[in-house]
Amino acid sequence: MINKDEFETYLSSLIAEDYIVEKAMNYSLLARSKRLRPLLLLNCLKDFDFPYQQGFCCGATIEMIHTYSLIHDDLPAFDNDDLRRGKPTCHKAFDEETAILAGDALLTFAFENICNGLYSAQQKVELIKYISSSAGKDGMIKGQSLDKSYEGKTVQLEQLIEMDELKTARLLSLPLICAAIIADKKEYIPLFKEVGNKLGIAFQIQYDILDLSAGNQLGKSTSDLKNKKSTYISLLSMDKAQNYVRQLFAEINTILDQDSLNFANSKELINSLINRTW
Amino acid sequence: MINKDEFETYLSSLIAEDYIVEKAMNYSLLARSKRLRPLLLLNCLKDFDFPYQQGFCCGATIEMIHTYSLIHDDLPAFDNDDLRRGKPTCHKAFDEETAILAGDALLTFAFENICNGLYSAQQKVELIKYISSSAGKDGMIKGQSLDKSYEGKTVQLEQLIEMDELKTARLLSLPLICAAIIADKKEYIPLFKEVGNKLGIAFQIQYDILDLSAGNQLGKSTSDLKNKKSTYISLLSMDKAQNYVRQLFAEINTILDQDSLNFANSKELINSLINRTW
Repeated sequence: MINKDEFETYLSSLIAEDYIVEKAMNYSLLARSKRLRPLLLLNCLKDFDFPYQQGFCCGATIEMIHTYSLIHDDLPAFDNDDLRRGKPTCHKAFDEETAILAGDALLTFAFENICNGLYSAQQKVELIKYISSSAGKDGMIKGQSLDKSYEGKTVQLEQLIEMDELKTARLLSLPLICAAIIADKKEYIPLFKEVGNKLGIAFQIQYDILDLSAGNQLGKSTSDLKNKKSTYISLLSMDKAQNYVRQLFAEINTILDQDSLNFANSKELINSLINRTW
Repeated sequence: MINKDEFETYLSSLIAEDYIVEKAMNYSLLARSKRLRPLLLLNCLKDFDFPYQQGFCCGATIEMIHTYSLIHDDLPAFDNDDLRRGKPTCHKAFDEETAILAGDALLTFAFENICNGLYSAQQKVELIKYISSSAGKDGMIKGQSLDKSYEGKTVQLEQLIEMDELKTARLLSLPLICAAIIADKKEYIPLFKEVGNKLGIAFQIQYDILDLSAGNQLGKSTSDLKNKKSTYISLLSMDKAQNYVRQLFAEINTILDQDSLNFANSKELINSLINRTW
């Protein structure tokens, strides 16, 4: 399984820090992170027996989009969070306008960055299509909007799942889909959408479980409970939520095992998340 | 000269209004506007004797990026403006989080939209490169950051010009550059950068003049004067500022007249701005 070290070095080389917005971009982008999304991409490329380093550029683009969404999500208008990834949120370390601009700049640079990759023009266009539609008004942003609209309300389990498929799962399917485009294995896209969807829901249930635990390592200061949101725990009970997580991971393994490809690296990475404490 | 009617109809067809963020996107995108940036692109294509309708997609993408920048620039953390394009700003008509998401969504959809255009993959990648670098951390966003950092300070004329070259001129050169890419006339890019730079400064000086005039039609409620910013008027005096505008337009005409191409439509559009009152 590929670890994040080599990618981390690459990521830290992309943005010069010539003025405050660039400093804020790197402050958030280079903060402590498991780099799950890029690692999904890199390990999937390795499973395809494709040089994984060619995923660095696209992995960085996805990580920039993930980071911009965290910066904006922490703003006072949203979660109003003081801590993220174990240190002050971007608008606390800098100020609100710099945080908004840093988010905007990461989102914009994500697309500039992918144009510099060693992919064909056709691949770049396909990557940009999937990245923008997964992150945009029909994907992650719609999930964030639903999340905000559900605050203070009791919602149904189906609504929570629909929201997390948009807010979280779309950006977890994305790196696998991008790997399929880069390795010229587009026949895997439907399978990866299914895997990413289940992983996204499992990931979000785990988040709710960790959010409730004392001394968790989420590195955030504001819990969803405090923000009066319905969670999988409030809707399902802790036991059922934990069972649901195990069931989803089992389903992911079954899906991947049914394919003729081994997916050894991707599975090792995904299964390392079953008992995550972060 | 091509007017904006046909483009306006096209623009209003792009975003369905299925939920609040999409409504907010269209609220700002379809507000009263001269559509200067798309019209620069369309008229330049016409001067190249290239079907101007093929510029609609790229023109819409540039207009989306311009609109997102206005939405975020109006937020309380920035200019805290109540009015834009003659009606309540996005965060006033909706709320702050919806305005932030609508800006993010317009920026993201701008890149998705260009992928749907009838351009070659190579052209799309070149367009995306220029669009993202003009709007991003080394372009418009850097200008916005400088703008914020100059608040309450007296700056030099050179600093004001540098700021406006980034904040305003980059997005006025961009449609001309995009026209050159779409019409396969990339040899014009250096010339268009020069024209766009001068137009951007002229445009910004005019803005400062209008900002001071009673009953102006800027459709904004907060003046830069109120925000304690240095302006071309405070640095140059009204007379010199007005002369500078005339000089810049004269220089633009000289540049365009020196080329063997006529640029009749672009020049008509640009010269219609000399006495702008909006």
